[in-house]
Amino acid sequence: MVETVQTYDGWYALHDFRTMDWEKWQLSSEQDKKEALHEFKELIGTWQNQADQKKGSHALYTIVGQKADLMFMVLRPTMQDLNHLENELNRTKIARYFKPAYSYVSIIEKSSYTKPDINPYEDPNMLSKLFPSIPEEDYICFYPMSKLRGETNNWFTLPKAERGRMMFDHIKTSKPFTEQVKRIITGSIGLDDYEWGVSLFCNDPLQFKKLIYDTRFDEVSAKYGIFGSFYIGCRLVLDDIESFFVI
Amino acid sequence: MVETVQTYDGWYALHDFRTMDWEKWQLSSEQDKKEALHEFKELIGTWQNQADQKKGSHALYTIVGQKADLMFMVLRPTMQDLNHLENELNRTKIARYFKPAYSYVSIIEKSSYTKPDINPYEDPNMLSKLFPSIPEEDYICFYPMSKLRGETNNWFTLPKAERGRMMFDHIKTSKPFTEQVKRIITGSIGLDDYEWGVSLFCNDPLQFKKLIYDTRFDEVSAKYGIFGSFYIGCRLVLDDIESFFVI
Amino acid sequence: MVETVQTYDGWYALHDFRTMDWEKWQLSSEQDKKEALHEFKELIGTWQNQADQKKGSHALYTIVGQKADLMFMVLRPTMQDLNHLENELNRTKIARYFKPAYSYVSIIEKSSYTKPDINPYEDPNMLSKLFPSIPEEDYICFYPMSKLRGETNNWFTLPKAERGRMMFDHIKTSKPFTEQVKRIITGSIGLDDYEWGVSLFCNDPLQFKKLIYDTRFDEVSAKYGIFGSFYIGCRLVLDDIESFFVI
Amino acid sequence: MVETVQTYDGWYALHDFRTMDWEKWQLSSEQDKKEALHEFKELIGTWQNQADQKKGSHALYTIVGQKADLMFMVLRPTMQDLNHLENELNRTKIARYFKPAYSYVSIIEKSSYTKPDINPYEDPNMLSKLFPSIPEEDYICFYPMSKLRGETNNWFTLPKAERGRMMFDHIKTSKPFTEQVKRIITGSIGLDDYEWGVSLFCNDPLQFKKLIYDTRFDEVSAKYGIFGSFYIGCRLVLDDIESFFVI
Amino acid sequence: MVETVQTYDGWYALHDFRTMDWEKWQLSSEQDKKEALHEFKELIGTWQNQADQKKGSHALYTIVGQKADLMFMVLRPTMQDLNHLENELNRTKIARYFKPAYSYVSIIEKSSYTKPDINPYEDPNMLSKLFPSIPEEDYICFYPMSKLRGETNNWFTLPKAERGRMMFDHIKTSKPFTEQVKRIITGSIGLDDYEWGVSLFCNDPLQFKKLIYDTRFDEVSAKYGIFGSFYIGCRLVLDDIESFFVI
Repeated sequence: MVETVQTYDGWYALHDFRTMDWEKWQLSSEQDKKEALHEFKELIGTWQNQADQKKGSHALYTIVGQKADLMFMVLRPTMQDLNHLENELNRTKIARYFKPAYSYVSIIEKSSYTKPDINPYEDPNMLSKLFPSIPEEDYICFYPMSKLRGETNNWFTLPKAERGRMMFDHIKTSKPFTEQVKRIITGSIGLDDYEWGVSLFCNDPLQFKKLIYDTRFDEVSAKYGIFGSFYIGCRLVLDDIESFFVI
Repeated sequence: MVETVQTYDGWYALHDFRTMDWEKWQLSSEQDKKEALHEFKELIGTWQNQADQKKGSHALYTIVGQKADLMFMVLRPTMQDLNHLENELNRTKIARYFKPAYSYVSIIEKSSYTKPDINPYEDPNMLSKLFPSIPEEDYICFYPMSKLRGETNNWFTLPKAERGRMMFDHIKTSKPFTEQVKRIITGSIGLDDYEWGVSLFCNDPLQFKKLIYDTRFDEVSAKYGIFGSFYIGCRLVLDDIESFFVI
Repeated sequence: MVETVQTYDGWYALHDFRTMDWEKWQLSSEQDKKEALHEFKELIGTWQNQADQKKGSHALYTIVGQKADLMFMVLRPTMQDLNHLENELNRTKIARYFKPAYSYVSIIEKSSYTKPDINPYEDPNMLSKLFPSIPEEDYICFYPMSKLRGETNNWFTLPKAERGRMMFDHIKTSKPFTEQVKRIITGSIGLDDYEWGVSLFCNDPLQFKKLIYDTRFDEVSAKYGIFGSFYIGCRLVLDDIESFFVI
Repeated sequence: MVETVQTYDGWYALHDFRTMDWEKWQLSSEQDKKEALHEFKELIGTWQNQADQKKGSHALYTIVGQKADLMFMVLRPTMQDLNHLENELNRTKIARYFKPAYSYVSIIEKSSYTKPDINPYEDPNMLSKLFPSIPEEDYICFYPMSKLRGETNNWFTLPKAERGRMMFDHIKTSKPFTEQVKRIITGSIGLDDYEWGVSLFCNDPLQFKKLIYDTRFDEVSAKYGIFGSFYIGCRLVLDDIESFFVI
Repeated sequence: MVETVQTYDGWYALHDFRTMDWEKWQLSSEQDKKEALHEFKELIGTWQNQADQKKGSHALYTIVGQKADLMFMVLRPTMQDLNHLENELNRTKIARYFKPAYSYVSIIEKSSYTKPDINPYEDPNMLSKLFPSIPEEDYICFYPMSKLRGETNNWFTLPKAERGRMMFDHIKTSKPFTEQVKRIITGSIGLDDYEWGVSLFCNDPLQFKKLIYDTRFDEVSAKYGIFGSFYIGCRLVLDDIESFFVI
């Protein structure tokens, strides 16, 4: 019988991608735009209150290419919180200028192939990873992924030691990038269509390519990695929202 | 010749996912909204009458992420009942604010690898599973699935004893979750695009991930499971419908 | 060299699935609805004339779930007839309330692994199958299918005797359903995206699942069957058209 | 090193499929319809001039089923010609009633596994195939296709003699149809998403099925054929354009 | 452990495909069209300024077939530059007549299986490839591609020498086309859904087919190449923009 791996779970995560209806936005009145932006910034203000109280974290990105224009990444203590938040966003005035593009539902997950020495939920280092602030780097790279269950190569029928060895090699390959590229790994088995979500953060987007290129030759990625779409976003801070929407 | 497994069948099931056109809803008059909600709640009232007479069951959910906004899960004695119900829903005023998202047609199915001691259709325990009330837990996790018919690994050419052994192991893995996670399994071979529908119900959505993660290492899931999209919903009770639609 | 199988061909078939724009329909005037329904019923009247003259057959179904709302199944002597018929339907007033959903183009096909004793085109039994009336059962189950041409398992490189044996076993499995479940098999190699269309007719839709479940364990289905989407419809007779459109 | 095959190339080909917005057409004024048809027929007149000067060929078809309503097949000396032609068509009044359905870009290609005795570009027989008039048969069957590059069966790593043998067998199978079914093979490696386009022409569409059915058992089709969508069209001659658009 | 290959990276690249809403364009006023074109040409003027300062390069193409009508290929020093540029384009008046079709995000990449003698970032030849002007040839052929990670044939688990040998053979096959067909290879691992983007430039589009046909028989393409959609475009120079939009 194959041994599973212990996982520790933190905040729930929603990656919410929207396409902007620029024509509709431009054709609306100055008054409507002002009201929509005001309400939007107030909503983000309430999100910031949650973040200040360590009850979640959020960040906005403008996505490069036609896959989407905006992406909201939000972390919250419960699934219900995420649902309330997206429904609240959907009911705003600015949402009338959004078209759906993609979304991903998952939960921050740390897995361990070895038994931890102390209770992870009492370990400050682990807690900061399970309930993190979204890194403030300029760029995000998000992609969902699964592990292959092929007729020959099947991740889920491998012995735990084998899987642990490959994951260890994988971590070794990405070591040179640790400083520059921060990451939040979320689990989504049973929650969305891939098994994990990967969110990378860096000030130099070339490092995304270099990191993923180097690790693609790792046995775990080369033989078992199934990758969804890759999304590259540029961080949009509160002060730049007005200039993004060009009022 | 491969032996099939005996199945016992209960109510027909429709999982009906809709996306809400929030802008259209918000731009409609208070009068129109009131009338639409009134008619909608009356319709659900007639569904409740059916449930009270043990002629079916139903539940509403708000779906997390962009796959849908609302999901209706409905159980009924005949396929014609489901067809009438969806046509009736489609003709309501509130349906004018819905856009199609996804649907799944199936029938509650219990299968048995061993011969039952008593006629299942006279066994009160079995009957309560074939004609159930949808559990009232806060969250639902729905996904359709099939079994692999690969060139090497083919579920449908395995001997019955082999299949029975794997299903038995699978049940053993999910045992620790029995209390917390309720389930309704529906069969859909010949009725929809996957072979089964799985509806899980729990007050803690993390348990969906933990259950499906653990069972993914079971031979039956690891080697033979083909999974469709996963949908996570939060139960929407009658009393919260108005606040969801924010009148 | 692999031996092909002799096929005998009858009427051309069009399965034409449409989604109803209910809001548009409801918002149109009583006059418009009346005219549209009148014209629609007149068109179906002309189809009935064809059927009465044994120059084709047709049936209407309401489809369960969101894949479509209506399905027209039509049999005609020539491909041009089908093309004229769909163009005529597309130009009706009621078609303005339809949205395209799916269609399938094929031709009734009987294949034989053995040499028939009499010329099939002079055999009344065969002729009734090649030029049939669509059965009047309450439910239809339609799905397109192909046979696998995999790198290991390839239907089209098997010896004819092997294929014949598997088809014979398959027929044996479905024997218990012969009375209850009627069928029309259409060939579509070169005409549409799968190789065959299967139309099953029954008064009890559970039998669709039971038949397809049992036959899925047949070697021909388990190893070689590739199935498209499954569509379940409830027969809509002329007298119920008005109540379906709720005038 | 695998030997490629020599190809000879003729006119560029565009297969341009459109769906008709019948409601929009019907709701437009008689004047608008007349003008649109007049301009459309003038455009086709200019195409006819090109054909008369042997600078290309064109044909119109009405497509059976919902994949499209109309298909333009056009042959031209340069890729730029095709681009101009489609842009010109897109700017016509009638194009406002078209919705995009599918298109395919390729070039007429004859390949040879043996060295020709005379320079193909000086061989009148070859020239008539590279720069043909589109056959005037009543029906067209179009489909794009590729050759499998599987992990076991890979067309592109087979020795040339092996490929030649299979193509020779394939031609033998289709020999009985040569008279009845005309064909234009176009190459599209690097030009569109499949490797070849196949356009068959016949007065009896059943022969499409019979030809493709028989050849599917050929080793080259059975093991290496990857087929895209199949489109069946009925030839629409200039004189029938008005009746198709029902003015 | 598999050895990766050293890559050198230049400008970021955006391939941005749009479909033209011709009807909307034609129905707008002469004044609106003039303003839109004027603003559009001014925007392209600012792009030309960047190009003149060697801070990027750009080109416009009209795409053959229905995949798109226009394609912008833009090279810029930073990802943020690309994001600003597409947002600026999206906010123009002419963008109101565009519909999204496809986009691809990547970065110019030169890889080397051997250690270069001089620092590539100081080698003028290499620098001209990393920071190039887009060739002025009449036609472009763009396609994204990946390398197979199959259960048997897996590019990413091959020894470096093996990969180098195959790439060397591949280069040898394309040698006869070097003069005629220019190319820009961009890397997109971690940036978009395939691993590389290939942009070929030539005055004779038949050479695209011949080059890709010949190389498809190379072991690296035959066994390991996974190809996305192929897009063929005709260069649209500034002076032809007005005639394309037919003012």
